[in-house]
This record gives sequence, C-alpha cells and structure tokens, in this order.
Amino acid sequence: MDDIPFFVKIDHLGIAVPSLEAAVPTWTTLFGKGPEHFEEVPDQRVRTAFFGVGESHFELLEPTSPDSPIAAFLDKRRGGIHHVCVQVTDLDAALAEYKRRGVRLIDQEPRLGAHGCRIAFVHPAATGGVLLELSQPLDEPHP
Amino acid sequence: MDDIPFFVKIDHLGIAVPSLEAAVPTWTTLFGKGPEHFEEVPDQRVRTAFFGVGESHFELLEPTSPDSPIAAFLDKRRGGIHHVCVQVTDLDAALAEYKRRGVRLIDQEPRLGAHGCRIAFVHPAATGGVLLELSQPLDEPHP
Repeated sequence: MDDIPFFVKIDHLGIAVPSLEAAVPTWTTLFGKGPEHFEEVPDQRVRTAFFGVGESHFELLEPTSPDSPIAAFLDKRRGGIHHVCVQVTDLDAALAEYKRRGVRLIDQEPRLGAHGCRIAFVHPAATGGVLLELSQPLDEPHP
Repeated sequence: MDDIPFFVKIDHLGIAVPSLEAAVPTWTTLFGKGPEHFEEVPDQRVRTAFFGVGESHFELLEPTSPDSPIAAFLDKRRGGIHHVCVQVTDLDAALAEYKRRGVRLIDQEPRLGAHGCRIAFVHPAATGGVLLELSQPLDEPHP
C-alpha cells in the first residue's frame, strides 16, 4: 500500500466560529480578500463561508442549531480548527484499505457532503486527535 | 486592501503528537505513503516528520523537551492540529498591514523558521482560536 498514495490535496480546513458575522471581517483582514462563497449545510446544521488559498479553502463554520456538531465543539473551546478535509483519489478504495488495516471510521460508507462530494470521516481516535474528513468530487475525480 | 490578497497556499498543517515512532506508522497508513522528510528544530524543541499532500504538507511535531510549545499543547490535549501555516507573498507587507489594522501578533517582526523560511505567528486571540503561522521562503518568494 505504500505505493498507492490516496491523498490529492488539502481540500479545506474547517474552522468553528460562534458567528460568521464577526468572523468574516476578521478573516477578510487576515486573507487580504473576502470570502468567495457562502453556503448553508442543513445536514450539518451550519452556515459556512469559504476563503480560497491556493488549491485549498478555509471553511468558517457557524452552527445554526444547538445540536450542530460545531455547537458541541464551541461548548468545549471558544473556536478554532475543527477538522481537516483531504481530497482522495478513490474514496471507496481508501475506506476499504483503512478497514483492512483496522483504522477506526466514523462513516463506514461514503455519504453525500456539500458541493456534490462524497465524503467520509475518520475517527479522531485513529489519527491521534485529528478529525479527518476524506472527500472525492463526484464530477471531477482528479482536478 | 481587499485587492491585495496575501495568502499563496497552505504551506503545512502542524499536528502535535506524543511520539513520532507511534504516529508515523499511523499517518503512513492514512496517507498510503511514508513521510518525505524528518527534521529536528532545536529552536522549537521538536522533532518533525513531513508528509506531502498536493502543494502542502502535514507536519507531525513531537516535543524533545518539556518546555517545548508542543509539550504544553499535549498537556492540555492528547494531540491534534496545533497550527496552520500559510505561505504569504510578502511577510513584511502582511505584518505591516496587520499592525495597521490592530491584528494581535505573537511575532512583531519576521524570524527565521525551518527550511530557510522567514516566519511570524499571529496570536490566536486575533483569529478566534486558530494558531496561524505565516511563512515566506527566502529563496523562492513566489513558487
């Protein structure tokens, strides 16, 4: 397997924020430019703002409901990096290999994420505390 | 300033680990390939392993001393994402603009980091809890 790297690029870094209204001006100053895109993801109970950087994005995540995973994160910390999402060449192959090697997963099978991507989360217990999302675009598998 | 974006790419994601010996096999499985590079950074009291992903790297950070910043982080959490480093076009210009706008900095002036880069850290209070490192290569300013 050492000859079959799965990871294409860092797709995005998910950053938990209590309020997009407060965080967007902050990150606009830091980036030197404003967000490219806003999106609400009802499935995750979040509103998001995307700032592009190279081939990746910073994704600000504001909870829209107390039962959002981001709300739970903000209860423990005031904010910060919530997860990293890596684009993979073949999500099915990656998950199959991970299962074969005993890597603990949150999602046993791919599910549909934002932007028409298939996604799956690896359990932080399998990564030493990093919440790792894997993503594969449906329409452009190898951009 | 909205017309002067500073950020080129995510240079690396710094991940705190108690032990490289344990973490390198874990991340080798996750990446499907081994690390490209090991380096000891005496200034930060860390040993590091670099895994390439697209134009970025994951940088595993093991403390070599109890007074390492990474040791302090591991005292609070067992491990996880410690910081994100973004390559900037012009570090002096970015810091000058940040100061002008009242962004709180850890480093008021650039200092020398690993890999022959000039670096500076923004204070997490200025980013809503994200430890943000800015970096500018000395020999290739705009790769």
